Amino acid sequence: MIKPRLEVCLSPALLYLYDTKDAVVVIIDIFRASSTITAALDNGAECVIPVASVGECIELGKSIKNSITAGERDGKVAEGLQHGNSPLEYPKSFIEGKTLILTTTNGTRLLYMVKDAAEIIIGSFLNLDVACEYLAKCGHNVLLACASWKDRFNLEDTLFAGAVVHKLEGKFDINCDSARAAKHLFMATAGKGHLIEFLKDSSHYKRLAKFGLEHDMEYCVTPNLHPVVPVLKDKKLVKDGLSDQKA
Amino acid sequence: MIKPRLEVCLSPALLYLYDTKDAVVVIIDIFRASSTITAALDNGAECVIPVASVGECIELGKSIKNSITAGERDGKVAEGLQHGNSPLEYPKSFIEGKTLILTTTNGTRLLYMVKDAAEIIIGSFLNLDVACEYLAKCGHNVLLACASWKDRFNLEDTLFAGAVVHKLEGKFDINCDSARAAKHLFMATAGKGHLIEFLKDSSHYKRLAKFGLEHDMEYCVTPNLHPVVPVLKDKKLVKDGLSDQKA
Repeated sequence: MIKPRLEVCLSPALLYLYDTKDAVVVIIDIFRASSTITAALDNGAECVIPVASVGECIELGKSIKNSITAGERDGKVAEGLQHGNSPLEYPKSFIEGKTLILTTTNGTRLLYMVKDAAEIIIGSFLNLDVACEYLAKCGHNVLLACASWKDRFNLEDTLFAGAVVHKLEGKFDINCDSARAAKHLFMATAGKGHLIEFLKDSSHYKRLAKFGLEHDMEYCVTPNLHPVVPVLKDKKLVKDGLSDQKA
Repeated sequence: MIKPRLEVCLSPALLYLYDTKDAVVVIIDIFRASSTITAALDNGAECVIPVASVGECIELGKSIKNSITAGERDGKVAEGLQHGNSPLEYPKSFIEGKTLILTTTNGTRLLYMVKDAAEIIIGSFLNLDVACEYLAKCGHNVLLACASWKDRFNLEDTLFAGAVVHKLEGKFDINCDSARAAKHLFMATAGKGHLIEFLKDSSHYKRLAKFGLEHDMEYCVTPNLHPVVPVLKDKKLVKDGLSDQKA
């Protein structure tokens, strides 16, 4: 039996090297778009609409009832928006039944760069196991796509990709050095249970820690707190039906 | 005292993210351009001229006395050239006093992409320690630039970058996740002394092993066999004067 292929793309600037046609692409933006989307949907958001710009976010917010506009620039809620990009801002008591319109720098951009995939889903530590189960059953080639930081390789997205490779390696054909490196990196560091300690020496952690977001980041790397798989359908991220049934 | 900056670029497609102005850029193409250039110069080649195409290689070969044209495409000596891209083809008895005109797919291309550096040198396991000494003393920012494989991240170039980061980290300011990842990867795997075993599960090793080049690759990852630093001067790679004195 021919296994489907699993590859890892370390930066949006390398996306053109990968064949995404008919593949399932996993968008990974651990700090923090992926994590916020996963948490909001698990906490009952109707859907999350990812948009590229603050302007678009404001416009869309006016036209959708019961919606929240959210997004940050330089660690602060962007001017004209209502909320930020922290998963902790969206508990059930606040977000249930609402539409979250979210603009982020890296994750959203990558999501719209992928043109011909069979499906786009969101991966984060918060949904690690259910995302892996979803991929194991999907029957498609898989590309784990790291949003990185302005096209620069980053550790937290790569470590998550490594965690997925580690869990799925028997089920896929893996001949991709990025996937191998991500897995070894995860096994050598985060795999030993000190993920957040390890990430304290990373560019993005240091950047966000300056805004006092240490607690946020610790939350974002906690596995399986929000076991839902966000799937892109008609430009909206919704909970996958399967994960709904499991819940 | 402000330390100079050390960064790692994992693919030529990411080079635009880095400021190479007035930096020393280390071109890394372990399998095998970097290794062959280092070996040939240590074995007495007058210089190595890296060129982009087979045609250019042939033309230049006609105009330079006592020169050798070399390059491979798909694991074989390219049509019209005399020799291949193996460090083992260039022992002292053969290459001493000659000019090696070399065309390679990935390393040469990257070398010509770097436009404004203070200096370009060649790094390989074969010259690991002297290259690190050179960088420690250079007083410039340093970019370790992996040639990769057709822009795809590869393990062997990254592991070498990791070895350099590991050796130099106290001497440079390092705030670059690629550098951190490369170092951790090196420490976790190759750092434990089984570099070639580790690389047997890598894309490039598998590709070259199909051409029977296992022995070549083992040679290429042996540290410090050829303690010279190739430096680009007027489009020619020559031995650094310092490494000459040391020899």
